[in-house]
Amino acid sequence: MGIVTCQISISLDGFVAGPNQSIENPIGEGGMRLHDWVFATASWRRQHGEDAGADGADSEVADEVVQGVGAYIMGRKMFGGGSGGWDLEWKGWWGDEPPYHAPVFVLTHHARQPLSMLGGTAFTFVTDGIASALEQAKAAAGDQDVSIAGGASTVRQYLAAGSLDELYLHIVPILLGAGERLLDDAGDPVLQPVKVVASPAVTHIKYRIVK
Amino acid sequence: MGIVTCQISISLDGFVAGPNQSIENPIGEGGMRLHDWVFATASWRRQHGEDAGADGADSEVADEVVQGVGAYIMGRKMFGGGSGGWDLEWKGWWGDEPPYHAPVFVLTHHARQPLSMLGGTAFTFVTDGIASALEQAKAAAGDQDVSIAGGASTVRQYLAAGSLDELYLHIVPILLGAGERLLDDAGDPVLQPVKVVASPAVTHIKYRIVK
Repeated sequence: MGIVTCQISISLDGFVAGPNQSIENPIGEGGMRLHDWVFATASWRRQHGEDAGADGADSEVADEVVQGVGAYIMGRKMFGGGSGGWDLEWKGWWGDEPPYHAPVFVLTHHARQPLSMLGGTAFTFVTDGIASALEQAKAAAGDQDVSIAGGASTVRQYLAAGSLDELYLHIVPILLGAGERLLDDAGDPVLQPVKVVASPAVTHIKYRIVK
Repeated sequence: MGIVTCQISISLDGFVAGPNQSIENPIGEGGMRLHDWVFATASWRRQHGEDAGADGADSEVADEVVQGVGAYIMGRKMFGGGSGGWDLEWKGWWGDEPPYHAPVFVLTHHARQPLSMLGGTAFTFVTDGIASALEQAKAAAGDQDVSIAGGASTVRQYLAAGSLDELYLHIVPILLGAGERLLDDAGDPVLQPVKVVASPAVTHIKYRIVK
């Protein structure tokens, strides 16, 4: 039986997206700075069919976070495609071969037929809430883990519902000053740091959530 | 020549004090949970004339943060004694022998004669602003470091002014949900993580602030 996990990059002042988020720029102004560390890794570049990139601690973390994940859950904003009904041409931000290589359950208010992509990514659109999405993701993952891919409000909902077993934060040493916070209104979970990986670019802390 | 440093305990959601702070309870509701880790250390207990306590990584950090500090700066709320003029009976929260053992410069709007305590702590009350306090603290510290002791707004002012060389955060795995944030309106400093110490209770990250 796998666990329910989440790994996400967060600024030192607590933001996972910058200010002035929009449909076209869901990560907000300056938000891409949160991901510079991972784009630089050999692991991320391999996962996206590119070569070069840096080995080392950050690359090992980028490898680690995709190991053993059998299914993903993401919010509608992260999948994209506007805020209303579906433009059926829209197939996510990731091109024909998204980097998930697993079933992905997308939380939405608008029904849509499943979408199979190259490389094993299969998007299923779930309209009946976070509990249903988790149940479906667990069934799809089998013995493997379910990873909550984001965005912030999706992670926060699962955290507040007590569904998360693990939260792996990549603490990026920048101050965004404004934007979307990950940990507001997330209740008072009991968190235990179980693993810390340090690099010059980012500090990775894995928390177990004690039930 | 020493540096200007600050070490402070912060919740994972960014608070250094809980909600509903008051004159009588400047650390706010639940804020003492930020300091449980240090009270448990052998180092802290030794510094406060008590025995027992736990050795290990956290105790080593509690030792480290008082090494080489030649002077401290703190805000009036942290020193205490009400929000208006001085009750001259008030000599801080720490009894006759405060744990600083060095000159301490207290930022205030109300002049007061210096106050010498047992064990080498000497409080000087500075009414002409943060730059003056820093200048006096540097002169008093000589070759040693100046440590900004707190509270949050004092740290934030020195950070925003570009005066801090180092910020050593003790990230406590709790969510306070509300209270006083350390890193709001602190500008966009360039931070480099230079040291990380992990324990089951807290994650210590030392950032160098690049000028």
